[in-house]
Amino acid sequence: MPDVNAVLEKADGNLDAGIERLFELIRIPSISTDPAHAGDCHRAGEWLVQELRSLGFDADLRETTGHPMVVAHHAGAAPDAPHALFYGHYDVQPVDPLELWETDPFMPELRTGATGRKVVTGRGSADDKGQLMTFVEACRAYKEAEGGLPCRVTILFEGEEESGSPSLKPFLDANAEELKADFAMVCDTNMWDADTPALSAGLRGLVGEEITVTAADRDLHSGYFGGAAANPIHVLAKVLADLHDETGRITVPGFYDGVEETPDDVKASWTALGKSDADFLGEVGLSKPSGETGRSALELTWARPTAEVNGIHGGYTGEGFKTVIAAEASAKVSFRLVGTQDPVAVRASFREFVEARIPDDCSVRFSKHGGSGAIQLPYDSPLLTKAKEALSDEWPNPAVMIGMGGSIPIVGDFQKKLGMDSLLVGFGLSDDRIHSPNEKYELTSFQRGIRSWIRILHALA
Amino acid sequence: MPDVNAVLEKADGNLDAGIERLFELIRIPSISTDPAHAGDCHRAGEWLVQELRSLGFDADLRETTGHPMVVAHHAGAAPDAPHALFYGHYDVQPVDPLELWETDPFMPELRTGATGRKVVTGRGSADDKGQLMTFVEACRAYKEAEGGLPCRVTILFEGEEESGSPSLKPFLDANAEELKADFAMVCDTNMWDADTPALSAGLRGLVGEEITVTAADRDLHSGYFGGAAANPIHVLAKVLADLHDETGRITVPGFYDGVEETPDDVKASWTALGKSDADFLGEVGLSKPSGETGRSALELTWARPTAEVNGIHGGYTGEGFKTVIAAEASAKVSFRLVGTQDPVAVRASFREFVEARIPDDCSVRFSKHGGSGAIQLPYDSPLLTKAKEALSDEWPNPAVMIGMGGSIPIVGDFQKKLGMDSLLVGFGLSDDRIHSPNEKYELTSFQRGIRSWIRILHALA
Repeated sequence: MPDVNAVLEKADGNLDAGIERLFELIRIPSISTDPAHAGDCHRAGEWLVQELRSLGFDADLRETTGHPMVVAHHAGAAPDAPHALFYGHYDVQPVDPLELWETDPFMPELRTGATGRKVVTGRGSADDKGQLMTFVEACRAYKEAEGGLPCRVTILFEGEEESGSPSLKPFLDANAEELKADFAMVCDTNMWDADTPALSAGLRGLVGEEITVTAADRDLHSGYFGGAAANPIHVLAKVLADLHDETGRITVPGFYDGVEETPDDVKASWTALGKSDADFLGEVGLSKPSGETGRSALELTWARPTAEVNGIHGGYTGEGFKTVIAAEASAKVSFRLVGTQDPVAVRASFREFVEARIPDDCSVRFSKHGGSGAIQLPYDSPLLTKAKEALSDEWPNPAVMIGMGGSIPIVGDFQKKLGMDSLLVGFGLSDDRIHSPNEKYELTSFQRGIRSWIRILHALA
Repeated sequence: MPDVNAVLEKADGNLDAGIERLFELIRIPSISTDPAHAGDCHRAGEWLVQELRSLGFDADLRETTGHPMVVAHHAGAAPDAPHALFYGHYDVQPVDPLELWETDPFMPELRTGATGRKVVTGRGSADDKGQLMTFVEACRAYKEAEGGLPCRVTILFEGEEESGSPSLKPFLDANAEELKADFAMVCDTNMWDADTPALSAGLRGLVGEEITVTAADRDLHSGYFGGAAANPIHVLAKVLADLHDETGRITVPGFYDGVEETPDDVKASWTALGKSDADFLGEVGLSKPSGETGRSALELTWARPTAEVNGIHGGYTGEGFKTVIAAEASAKVSFRLVGTQDPVAVRASFREFVEARIPDDCSVRFSKHGGSGAIQLPYDSPLLTKAKEALSDEWPNPAVMIGMGGSIPIVGDFQKKLGMDSLLVGFGLSDDRIHSPNEKYELTSFQRGIRSWIRILHALA
């Protein structure tokens, strides 16, 4: 067995250089949803290939119909060492509204954050460039301290996670043999708090739909036509208002098929975490859960499905006023799924729900964005148990098992297509402002994250 | 009495040069709602001052806190000639979406339109630059044929009509003595059809409100917070969906105070015009009235109040998808008023209506845009009767008395502040696409419009 302490020391000695490497990656504005940044996505992938080659990985950039994949392989210390597939994504969210950023989103800085702790600033600092680099730096420390890795490692970095991962399933299908490992490790999740690491046993699925309601064949003057002409914003508002009933329950027929109540003992363990609704929501300026009544914020975000309007647009929205009846109005709607809710059935039922509310003289068209079911891992698997111990050795507090409200569709695909369970470990914090202006990643997350992977690889080897 | 036929001949001879003058005015992009075009608004006013001075008017540009007024005076043929105040506006609507224009909105052309008739293209060609120039060109023909005007004429052109006319009331108050005349003439309305001129006896009022709903103190990730955090788009959609009941009636308390049913004989005269709902709405790709059930499209747009959402915006609306819960969402809402509906009361009741629907953790702020009551002129006034005869002499079909769905707040101000009735005569057509891409003005509207004012001035002198 390698000497884990020597590897940990090597990692600490590499920290300053590791931060500079992370900065290099953040400086590449790899916004996957914006076609104008396709070249930057390519550049980010290429940067990672070079980085992994320098660590002895057999690494390549693999083209897709979208942004390329990074695939890299490294042998383990022994022929029978376990084989881990590590997954992360090098693409990032858009940065608007840009005027709310206190630093340039693509010029990272090491700053003292609001809580007095050091943070790395920038878009992707947490989601997911900072997170994936914890693993790369862990590999570097092993390489430099021990000359190699204790486990056999395959790495898969994609560049379309923030835009629905359209190329991922075809890529997994086409490269199943190459990518299959004993288990997967995914680093795109949060800690419980700054001192307490967490393992996620469940992940919500996601269905995205863009709906566009059209009425007249042009924008109309609201004086000449108002009162007689159909207004697509009114139609859209009615559809969206109908999505929830007065108890916050989603009204799309059949939506709750496959949703089971969370077992009482699981709910009790969440209550024991001691985070009240006011604590959870207070971090973002809110105080009361707004979803299904009678459920805690943790249950609502970890174990209940949702329907959220992520964007809406129609008519004149510039400065001043324009008395216009718009020709069309559109909204982006996403559903978070739990249990065995079927993304295909949810999408179909939602489309019927909308179509039933489109009056004469109006029409609707739909555009599909992503679709993946939820996933639930067993709480007592050996993989989770060993990783939990390794994490508990590194951090001030023992690791806790939590739920996860976000969707990481890859985890479902790993299970369905490659038969692998996934270890969901991440070092983000809930105030990292991912997807928002002023995203940051704690320096502690980065440093102890690297050390955590060193310990986990050691424990699993 | 001057020889009206000589004046009409002079006008016809001037037509080509008059079109070129109109082009010059359209080429000035005087978009009043956009601060970036303030200089252009000033330039349009200055252009009109020079034009009127060349016709012997005592004309000036008068600064306001917004865009300037054009005020001009010309004596009549006799000391006791009636005194008319002519009103128009030189500002125009924004041009977005620009990509839908077939011509440059500020590079007017004389083209053959969809119906085979010649049209002038460009933003403002109809609303209101083409219309106000019919009167200016009528004055030119009188000046050149007769050496002067048959009536005493004061001209008032404003530059803020498309953005709520904030400077107009203070300007009327401050210059009441100078602007007061025997009656006003306003050229900002439509013909009944291409062969049938119309006089408008009623005008709807207008109240505009922008509402912004806020929730969390930042944009949130819909995975981490979805289901527990308030979504301001949902709140806004509910408010807007609640504005109308299932019969299309507006639900704001007290909204219908001051709204009277249209007399049966008036409704019968509208039915006699022979324009079905399908005719009215078919011009814009619609077929059925969508407002209060059981009323015709003409009644809905001429004699009933409305609530219309003119714009809505919230969350991510760019390409692709962003799983965000927005921090705020906003909508621009306007009400068209009839009868004696009080704009102040309507605004206050609407704000209460909205506030009652804002849940815990959310707040709302309001921004006021314009506010004016409706106006109704007597159908049998001598002013209307003489003008109706003059119009009937010029056009293929006799003139008709109609209602008007749009709002021209100045007409109410003329009545309230200066004690003047207004003659509402205009030569626009319902397919002129005002406020929309590809606005145009029929060459016939321009030519016969000029000739119509010559006849009206002659009849009133």
